[in-house]
Amino acid sequence: MKGYVQVYTGEGKGKTTAALGLALRAAGAGLKVYIGQFMKKRNYSELKSLQKFKDNIKTEQFGRQRFIGQKIMKEDKLLAQEGLEKIKKIIQSGKYNLVILDEINVVLSYGLLSEDEVIEIIKAKPEAQEIVLTGRGASQRIMKLADLVTEMKQIKHYFSKGVKARVGIEK
Amino acid sequence: MKGYVQVYTGEGKGKTTAALGLALRAAGAGLKVYIGQFMKKRNYSELKSLQKFKDNIKTEQFGRQRFIGQKIMKEDKLLAQEGLEKIKKIIQSGKYNLVILDEINVVLSYGLLSEDEVIEIIKAKPEAQEIVLTGRGASQRIMKLADLVTEMKQIKHYFSKGVKARVGIEK
Repeated sequence: MKGYVQVYTGEGKGKTTAALGLALRAAGAGLKVYIGQFMKKRNYSELKSLQKFKDNIKTEQFGRQRFIGQKIMKEDKLLAQEGLEKIKKIIQSGKYNLVILDEINVVLSYGLLSEDEVIEIIKAKPEAQEIVLTGRGASQRIMKLADLVTEMKQIKHYFSKGVKARVGIEK
Repeated sequence: MKGYVQVYTGEGKGKTTAALGLALRAAGAGLKVYIGQFMKKRNYSELKSLQKFKDNIKTEQFGRQRFIGQKIMKEDKLLAQEGLEKIKKIIQSGKYNLVILDEINVVLSYGLLSEDEVIEIIKAKPEAQEIVLTGRGASQRIMKLADLVTEMKQIKHYFSKGVKARVGIEK
């Protein structure tokens, strides 16, 4: 089975959840999944659920708590770089059928990682491996590299009514 | 916690998986989830994974095998109607924090259910309940009813290269 590169980008809701749903489906088929979450360091509700799939899904986070919206610090760059080093090994090991790089597009748009390096790592992926990149602001180069690109377009959003992120729904 | 109505529509990939990811997240937070899948009757890989959440997630399917692409028959209408009756009770029972109506937009665009009836059921939902509607071709009335609408827009798709649906990734 040939693996492809998928991108979920755009301002709309559903990018990370689409990747999580894919992980769930893949695990159900007995596939091995790796989820690397950039710019996150929190006990998101999904992590509790993913613990049920210890044999099939491995999750790691490379970020500080509540990074988004905060000023970028040297530490963020170091954490992202550390994450990329791990992911490079994960991809090259060929142990995983599906590798999800959650929020990598955001990391790239903040300039926390070298796009050249990320592209090089993805291009060198094992033939059968599926890679999923999420996050708003996917660059033209990333989209060109991808086989599938979906833009989550926000048509209507209740956050504009002043709703805060809710446990179990948004986080 | 107030519940909202979310719609995931459009031609792009990630609508059902976004709903599944949301179910995973909600279950992780201890919420109760109901997933009603219209126009589906198959052992999708995700069903195997969802079995791990028997205490939190209940899934039912209302469709014939391999419906999509086939001619609509009287049976499809009966199955959809049967599904809606069940869902009406599920929603009104208030037992579930999150109710997912997978592919309901497609069902409506095929005219298998009365849009008036579906809208009436959703409008009468318990205050705290979140409802998620997926499927391409969401109608203007459904989008008007919703608090959040995301269009999954297909920017690039490898299916145009002739890739068939793969176990664990597409099904």
